[in-house]
Amino acid sequence: MTAEIICVGTELLLGDIVNTNAQFLSRELAELGITVLHQHVVGDNAARLKELVATSRARSDLLVFSGGLGPTADDLTKETVADAFGDTLAFDPEEWRKIVDFFARTGRTPTENNRKQAMVPVRGHKLPNAHGTAPGAWFEDENGHCAALMPGVPREMKAMWAEQVRPLLERRQNCTIHSKTLHVLGGESRIAEKVGDLFDSANPTVAIYCKTGESEIRVTARSATAAQAEADCGAMLDRLRARLGDAAYDVDVPALEYTVVRALKERGLHAAAAESCTGGLVAEKLTNVPGASEVFGYGFVTYAEAAKAKLLGVAPALIEQYNVVSGPVAAAMALGAQRVSGAELAVALTGIAGPGGALPGKPVGTVYLGGCDARKNRVYLMRLTLGGYRERDIIRTRAALYALDLLRRMALDLPLPDALAAPADRCLADPAALDI
Amino acid sequence: MTAEIICVGTELLLGDIVNTNAQFLSRELAELGITVLHQHVVGDNAARLKELVATSRARSDLLVFSGGLGPTADDLTKETVADAFGDTLAFDPEEWRKIVDFFARTGRTPTENNRKQAMVPVRGHKLPNAHGTAPGAWFEDENGHCAALMPGVPREMKAMWAEQVRPLLERRQNCTIHSKTLHVLGGESRIAEKVGDLFDSANPTVAIYCKTGESEIRVTARSATAAQAEADCGAMLDRLRARLGDAAYDVDVPALEYTVVRALKERGLHAAAAESCTGGLVAEKLTNVPGASEVFGYGFVTYAEAAKAKLLGVAPALIEQYNVVSGPVAAAMALGAQRVSGAELAVALTGIAGPGGALPGKPVGTVYLGGCDARKNRVYLMRLTLGGYRERDIIRTRAALYALDLLRRMALDLPLPDALAAPADRCLADPAALDI
Repeated sequence: MTAEIICVGTELLLGDIVNTNAQFLSRELAELGITVLHQHVVGDNAARLKELVATSRARSDLLVFSGGLGPTADDLTKETVADAFGDTLAFDPEEWRKIVDFFARTGRTPTENNRKQAMVPVRGHKLPNAHGTAPGAWFEDENGHCAALMPGVPREMKAMWAEQVRPLLERRQNCTIHSKTLHVLGGESRIAEKVGDLFDSANPTVAIYCKTGESEIRVTARSATAAQAEADCGAMLDRLRARLGDAAYDVDVPALEYTVVRALKERGLHAAAAESCTGGLVAEKLTNVPGASEVFGYGFVTYAEAAKAKLLGVAPALIEQYNVVSGPVAAAMALGAQRVSGAELAVALTGIAGPGGALPGKPVGTVYLGGCDARKNRVYLMRLTLGGYRERDIIRTRAALYALDLLRRMALDLPLPDALAAPADRCLADPAALDI
Repeated sequence: MTAEIICVGTELLLGDIVNTNAQFLSRELAELGITVLHQHVVGDNAARLKELVATSRARSDLLVFSGGLGPTADDLTKETVADAFGDTLAFDPEEWRKIVDFFARTGRTPTENNRKQAMVPVRGHKLPNAHGTAPGAWFEDENGHCAALMPGVPREMKAMWAEQVRPLLERRQNCTIHSKTLHVLGGESRIAEKVGDLFDSANPTVAIYCKTGESEIRVTARSATAAQAEADCGAMLDRLRARLGDAAYDVDVPALEYTVVRALKERGLHAAAAESCTGGLVAEKLTNVPGASEVFGYGFVTYAEAAKAKLLGVAPALIEQYNVVSGPVAAAMALGAQRVSGAELAVALTGIAGPGGALPGKPVGTVYLGGCDARKNRVYLMRLTLGGYRERDIIRTRAALYALDLLRRMALDLPLPDALAAPADRCLADPAALDI
């Protein structure tokens, strides 16, 4: 099956908004095994829309629309597509009642214009909108070519897609889809070295999407039954995890901090963070997870040298001897954060986020990450070299990601790759032992 | 002049990436007074590309391409467009040398495939690429219809656009463009009440773009001379600022925190932040500004009640009496942050970011913002109601924005709208005076 995506809206042609709908629909259609030949954006212009629909319908099996279902006179998508597909529209009292009710809830009355939103296909069928006023529409011509019309508001479109259009297409494709996203620390090339051959798999498909310092691997299985699709998807996930090890940190989570908060809760642990170069980013991420207060109580943004002494008890002499961007200072910050907060686990970051501030032997991107595990009376240290990434926010984001991963590894008793470990008391007595 | 944007790339059709190029080019073309009729995305497929180019060229004056200039056999955009515009391509030794040099710098040698990247139009002309290997191309047919071919990598495309294609189109349009972006606190509807009539201005154009808790107003003036365009743009900015007052906080800045850091530097002031519900977001934003260490040294993420007592000296009895989400606690946090840090200015946030945690009379989104100005021995308090925004991160982002704005207003001695003010010592002695 081939498809074209048609997004209707003058705001897209003016560049007021970025077209995330086209990306979402492209990815979903690819997962259904449907080949997308074109994406189009067209304004609320009947003549141009008509020309486009005629061209696209002639060469593709399925047209997927978003936008153009509004109440104003220039929203003519439904009328134009009905005409092209040899269908007509009729007034639907049920949809009209929904529109009247929706307006009443927000203290308004619909205008006569809104009545056109209650017009639905006669031969095709409507697609009810659970999250807004405008119902969508499904058209089908005598040759089996189809069109799905959905709203332009991403939230409404995604819900209508997931609840109605996608199941309908799954039945057409005679299949069920099951997708899972594996979250993996590391860049695309390092991950591809280990699992790149699986990216060629036809079913399940395996696709990688890069984010800063980590990647998402989306596994999508198609099968005649839901159980088989789920099993195929799970088997591929197992293969990926077996090769990627503990760099693969979770499945279907919003972000690493969610995994960390859950791990801390499960183990009954608490965490604290002391931050210099990241300036609160680790704390901000952890506390954006609902319920984080159960496991995180203290964050120290010690951006000034004096703050490291005052809040964390880092000796000014230590800073003078080793420089504020150094292993001993990171270790002392982690120990201080642990001691002041009483949390079992603490992480600390001190580094050079740039663009200025480079030191001899310590270029922009040099970051020292300290970790303290009070249960084990141990301190861990890593020297990170994030200098390939010139941008300050990328260096900070990657540094925060390493700190969150260190918390995860300490909480779950996973090995700490390339970390220097020392007893906490030795570190306090002899910081030089940690001078990396 | 009418235009169509054609983005070439299978990765777009698969939904691997979102098409930010189309948005950028649409906005730029609108500013040039060029009407964009269509945006298209097509894969690396010669037949479909050829069909699309023929259709688009017949109806529009200008085709703007991004992508498809790579070295592989299926990158056929340049060849296809040359053919459609009746032009041919010739090998350009200068471009080839650049490609060889580029590879040499990264320790590689170009392949025979890369030679096609050095092919440039014979009747049209090349568009040198200052940031990558593939030059762009400019074609023009006998009817004056034009095509600009640029790389798909956004950084390369934007540079080529700004340095070469846009100036060329400005000459065609017989005009110069000058744009400025005014940053304004508040949502679109409140801003439109004050300046909405100016959005209809034809030249300069005035366009509003919404962000969380604030908006950007982009003013674009077209004129025959650069000086006149700049003057027209400046005059419109003055009109906007006169009506918007100090809600309009800056022009052409990355974000409010940049304005705050600059204001603090200019006034020789320092700031501290004590955060509960925002969990470090204010500190994180301030420290993402290069050079923030001159003005910001201390951030306190006091997510736990005990942390507020331990780090900021907030009396547990105060929390017990007024609840941790209350005016007196926000004031005490701000006072504590000021005292511990020694900064002249401090802000503090305590609130309910949700989804849980609502209290009687304090729904999700209730946030108390405290400010302390040690120069004036005064404490300020605001109760924010951000509950219309259900999402945790939106509530946090908006709360942080208010805190940054309070810092700006304290630093620049601007009035604090709807803020309750009290002498700092009275606040310490009698927190009830601040119970809002």
